[in-house]
Amino acid sequence: MSTSVSPLAPKSYPKMPAIEGVRIATAEAGIKYRNRTDLLAMTFDEGTTAAGVFTRSKCPSAPVDFCRQNLAGGKARVLVVNSGNANAFTGSKGRETTRMTAEAASRAAGCGTDAVYLASTGVIGEPLDAGRFSHLLDGMAAAAAPDRWSDAAKAIMTTDTFPKVATATVKFGEHSVTINGIAKGAGMIAPDMATMLSFIATDAAIAAPVLQSLLSKGVGPTFNAVTVDSDTSTSDTLMLFATGAAAKRGVAPVTDLSDPRLGAFKRALNRLLKSLALQVVRDGEGARKQVEVTVTGARSARSAKRIALSIANSPLVKTAIAGEDANWGRVVMAVGKAGEPADRDRLAIWFGENRLAYQGERDTGYSEEKTSAYMKRDEIAIRVDLGLGRGKATVWTCDLTKEYVAINGDYRS
Amino acid sequence: MSTSVSPLAPKSYPKMPAIEGVRIATAEAGIKYRNRTDLLAMTFDEGTTAAGVFTRSKCPSAPVDFCRQNLAGGKARVLVVNSGNANAFTGSKGRETTRMTAEAASRAAGCGTDAVYLASTGVIGEPLDAGRFSHLLDGMAAAAAPDRWSDAAKAIMTTDTFPKVATATVKFGEHSVTINGIAKGAGMIAPDMATMLSFIATDAAIAAPVLQSLLSKGVGPTFNAVTVDSDTSTSDTLMLFATGAAAKRGVAPVTDLSDPRLGAFKRALNRLLKSLALQVVRDGEGARKQVEVTVTGARSARSAKRIALSIANSPLVKTAIAGEDANWGRVVMAVGKAGEPADRDRLAIWFGENRLAYQGERDTGYSEEKTSAYMKRDEIAIRVDLGLGRGKATVWTCDLTKEYVAINGDYRS
Repeated sequence: MSTSVSPLAPKSYPKMPAIEGVRIATAEAGIKYRNRTDLLAMTFDEGTTAAGVFTRSKCPSAPVDFCRQNLAGGKARVLVVNSGNANAFTGSKGRETTRMTAEAASRAAGCGTDAVYLASTGVIGEPLDAGRFSHLLDGMAAAAAPDRWSDAAKAIMTTDTFPKVATATVKFGEHSVTINGIAKGAGMIAPDMATMLSFIATDAAIAAPVLQSLLSKGVGPTFNAVTVDSDTSTSDTLMLFATGAAAKRGVAPVTDLSDPRLGAFKRALNRLLKSLALQVVRDGEGARKQVEVTVTGARSARSAKRIALSIANSPLVKTAIAGEDANWGRVVMAVGKAGEPADRDRLAIWFGENRLAYQGERDTGYSEEKTSAYMKRDEIAIRVDLGLGRGKATVWTCDLTKEYVAINGDYRS
Repeated sequence: MSTSVSPLAPKSYPKMPAIEGVRIATAEAGIKYRNRTDLLAMTFDEGTTAAGVFTRSKCPSAPVDFCRQNLAGGKARVLVVNSGNANAFTGSKGRETTRMTAEAASRAAGCGTDAVYLASTGVIGEPLDAGRFSHLLDGMAAAAAPDRWSDAAKAIMTTDTFPKVATATVKFGEHSVTINGIAKGAGMIAPDMATMLSFIATDAAIAAPVLQSLLSKGVGPTFNAVTVDSDTSTSDTLMLFATGAAAKRGVAPVTDLSDPRLGAFKRALNRLLKSLALQVVRDGEGARKQVEVTVTGARSARSAKRIALSIANSPLVKTAIAGEDANWGRVVMAVGKAGEPADRDRLAIWFGENRLAYQGERDTGYSEEKTSAYMKRDEIAIRVDLGLGRGKATVWTCDLTKEYVAINGDYRS
């Protein structure tokens, strides 16, 4: 595990308020880590709805399979997350572990196993023994308290160097509701592969299909627009819970996507998703710089996003940025390899406000000195205009440093 | 430029014979490099046919555009290659440079500009002044000699740490013909992007359409099956020339793809393509290990190749191999993210002869000790069986080391 905190970590953390209807407990189960919490139980009041978005991997973990199945019911009473073992590629043993954990969690929360959600992050291929932690769930459910969101963010960390939290209070008709979220980053710890996990809760009452629609739409320009190393985990899980506890304060439930109260909520949710996603990038392994890649003038938004990801995932672009080198030739290369419509002779490229290339050639007004100064910043913005259409997209990544190779290339033994 | 030769360099180099009908000259034009050759002229006897395969980049270099256009005619008299400047993303200036170079080359070789082929490798976006070297072509054409293939391989190097050559003498009906090839690797030198270039010649007489067919088929399992860092150059160029000089020895020309004499020739050509492609991998920037990835049991050959490339391009797999870590969990991840049909519970994974995973779980017979010993080798073979069908594919890559980041992240100034 990294010992030093990312230089891109937040200077301060928000004070996380309680969310009515959510209670939190953490524990040291010793699954892999020692002297830190590695188990999170989050319980929800009766009536809580759930939405989720999961990895597109064809080799998903057992907990991902489990959550996908329960999500059809749309209701949640308890979430159990462990760090240190991903319970991925564990075959029938993995399914047995999710079954046993879900049974223990359902007893602890006093609900059916269909209202249980599970997530695991850590080593792949190592059987996870539910007996190591399931006996703790009873006590955790009893001791759970509302104001422990920061503790929750810490318990799910693997190679993260800082806990990731975000909160928003948002107008909801004549009332207001709160949204809290935590996340852990896409980091690896030899020999393990970790995972992006994020859990968000609100006290608003929102029907499950509406909640799912909000989450599915929100994830595209946020979590699905960040990349650390182009490697998709077996376990990526993003869930959104709505306890509905605000109804007690007279906030009427939302049952329809066209409910006008959802406008401000949606914007706040999307900002919160973006904040958590960017925190993941800013804690990318070995990251020293945050990189924002914007592509405009593409044939379509989809095409723009593919080109933006081709740039953001290029090892050559990422190493150049690590070296504070405004190597726009590598950006040209990455545009060219994306396989999307592009016309070399209409291409323009900016690093910050510095236009380096224009109409298929180096920009004659380009200042090496200004650009070099810009590249020393810790937030770099690359913009490419294709000059073909109106499609645009923005994605975020970090630079590729020797530290990334060191973290991921360490001997396993 | 790297100062130390790759540990994977060949222990010895073949003596390169002459190819009848080919003459070679090199020069120090000082385009970017000092105290080394950076210009190659290869002249071909009248009647030489040409075939070519080029980058699929949507932002190809000016020489790639130029070659593609001439290739329609299928005849070649002279090839001019420079290193140090890629003449890519140079707009109308770039086209002017290829025009002027082609004119100088056509005068030197006494042919039309439609029999000229050009390639450039080095920095992107920097105008290449044809005046820096075009005046040398006359003298080079006059001084060209048949036995200078090794010199040719050296003149086209950029960040390569060793010259790449291969030769084969092959039965051709009752006679024999010779095939020679040179290549330069996909390396980068701050702030430049280099390129894969390869040029092959034979004294056999083979009609251009037949030659093109042989090359296009040969490139799939060889040059198009290697990857160093997943980044496709603007300038990748592979050309095959057939001088037909063997006809003077009574070797009748080939005009049809079904000519039975092509069997042995095709096999020798493919071996030579593979040899050159693997030399490129073995000289990948920072490479310490050659990695062969074989996927079997896929739904189709195309699906197998996509999964194999997903593994070979994964930064996490490549850093694990650099760390001599048999991290098969990352192979599972790379299979899962490829987006191709895969069934987690049928997956089996081998490193060398060591089966690490079987039927979706860690193999119970897996020996950590044996596998760790295997990972210390400098040639690593990963095999994945999907258990779904009969599609298979093999690709090659190298590991991802801190040295790669150092080479590509150095400051430009």
